[in-house]
Amino acid sequence: MVKRLGESIPAALPDALRNHGLLVNTTTGLYGWGAELEAVYDGLKNALSAAVRDAEPTVLNFPPLLPRTVFEKSEYVSSFPHLFGAIHAFHGDEGAHENLERAVAKGEDWSGQTRLTDFVLAPAACYAVYPLYSRIVADGSKAVDVSGFCFRHEPSTEPGRLVSFRQREFVKIGSPADASTWFNEWSERSSALIRQLGLDVRVEAASDPFFGTSGQFLAENQREQGMKLEIVVPIGDHPVAVASSNYHRDHFGRIFDIQSAEGEPAHSACVAFGLERLAFALVAAHGPNTAHWPDGVRELLWSGCPETPGRGDPGPS
Amino acid sequence: MVKRLGESIPAALPDALRNHGLLVNTTTGLYGWGAELEAVYDGLKNALSAAVRDAEPTVLNFPPLLPRTVFEKSEYVSSFPHLFGAIHAFHGDEGAHENLERAVAKGEDWSGQTRLTDFVLAPAACYAVYPLYSRIVADGSKAVDVSGFCFRHEPSTEPGRLVSFRQREFVKIGSPADASTWFNEWSERSSALIRQLGLDVRVEAASDPFFGTSGQFLAENQREQGMKLEIVVPIGDHPVAVASSNYHRDHFGRIFDIQSAEGEPAHSACVAFGLERLAFALVAAHGPNTAHWPDGVRELLWSGCPETPGRGDPGPS
Repeated sequence: MVKRLGESIPAALPDALRNHGLLVNTTTGLYGWGAELEAVYDGLKNALSAAVRDAEPTVLNFPPLLPRTVFEKSEYVSSFPHLFGAIHAFHGDEGAHENLERAVAKGEDWSGQTRLTDFVLAPAACYAVYPLYSRIVADGSKAVDVSGFCFRHEPSTEPGRLVSFRQREFVKIGSPADASTWFNEWSERSSALIRQLGLDVRVEAASDPFFGTSGQFLAENQREQGMKLEIVVPIGDHPVAVASSNYHRDHFGRIFDIQSAEGEPAHSACVAFGLERLAFALVAAHGPNTAHWPDGVRELLWSGCPETPGRGDPGPS
Repeated sequence: MVKRLGESIPAALPDALRNHGLLVNTTTGLYGWGAELEAVYDGLKNALSAAVRDAEPTVLNFPPLLPRTVFEKSEYVSSFPHLFGAIHAFHGDEGAHENLERAVAKGEDWSGQTRLTDFVLAPAACYAVYPLYSRIVADGSKAVDVSGFCFRHEPSTEPGRLVSFRQREFVKIGSPADASTWFNEWSERSSALIRQLGLDVRVEAASDPFFGTSGQFLAENQREQGMKLEIVVPIGDHPVAVASSNYHRDHFGRIFDIQSAEGEPAHSACVAFGLERLAFALVAAHGPNTAHWPDGVRELLWSGCPETPGRGDPGPS
């Protein structure tokens, strides 16, 4: 049999996840999952697609990696240096290979045997979106529905704090009014949706985990100006942010040279959903057996077939 | 509008992918994709689940990362040092952060500003599976259906040679007879399935891209002993391996201390499918509009609803 979770899955995770084989061990902050939890992710994907459909977004998906050039441009390294992951690879010859093998075999630090590649791990799904609109004068505002695996280097036993997780984001790029309307609208709509999933929702003013002493000022500023709201639900006894709305002002418009129709740097806003945290909260609230979840929740997640593809879906445009 | 692909998507990719917004640019070997291609991945997921159902596998999914300890133990670094990706992170204080920011701003190599973490990118989906069976005496053979994003550091404009891609593997762990039967059976069954998708299939003896001069002997040996078969289909004008069957003998059983019922190191075999390559081959063969694909192919990919979860699915056991 596969080793079931209890063994080194953190005690802080609810028994419903620990004791029913929904998660399997890899290491702290990184877990595999079985068929039932995968069905919950599929259900969340359906429910979120249905929720955003009326905005007629461009639907985009990205692999877990981001080009290093985009990352370097994004200023992520200024604000969150403690969280990113950079991909290193080995570029050596057979002699260097022997050194690498020896270091690995001896359990030595082999950091120095590799070099930075052209890839980093995506810190958020929407970072792949903005460069696509670079040097384009927007003809009206743009809505994008974007999905991808993200990375944050904060290994932890806190429930739902994973190093690798799936993010779904609804992004708006346009005028200041477009972006702030999106921020307000989706703060409401996403908390209503999560409430419909039978979860106990609290909306809180929040800030990002900026690095260092100057970061504290940035965080206070962000909170005071109401630029980030988090939707917090319980995972067992722990309150956890399962979604956030973020108003970026012209941060990404300026960096990636996206212009609004008025010729100014475009403003942007996004609402971001953490699929693992939502799934863990659902299992904690409704139990490990999805067949016993409330009918309304099952309906939202799994009603009807996913749309048959190729019937009028224009793809990205 | 989003920049459509033609711009820097490799010319080697068929027009059906290049000119219909199915892929979007990020950088060489790394592309985003739209709703239509995502529906093809969902369809392949359905078709592969249906194909393996009679083996009653344990279904597991893993994030794109693997614990470094598992990677170091796996001997991947001996055979394929040129392909792995290791995750580095920044561990410094505010002074070190200034150096990092300066290096990034000047476009200098900032390799030295980060250190190896406890994570690497998964080189193959099945590497997360074997440690779960460590120090377990198998009571009969085990079948596992495993999914995940994998990484290979070989940025390329070849069609379907991606640095980050989805793998689906059907793995067998047990006696030598269990493993070799799985290898033979799934070489047949997977080529039959891919033929049913309307693709022109060729099965070839193959070898893995072992590193260095000693690697050449390993590759010849593997090929002579018939331990790897590839299922090759055209993506436009290019023959590309979309699946492979692999007989590992006791390689993983020995490394991860998995015993067969007879008390010997277990043998293992897997069949691995590359979902992006399969999807690209389908688009190249049947065109960019999935509504016009042959009825039999649409039936295989999208017939019926995915199973409603929680109705007798035992999850991993």
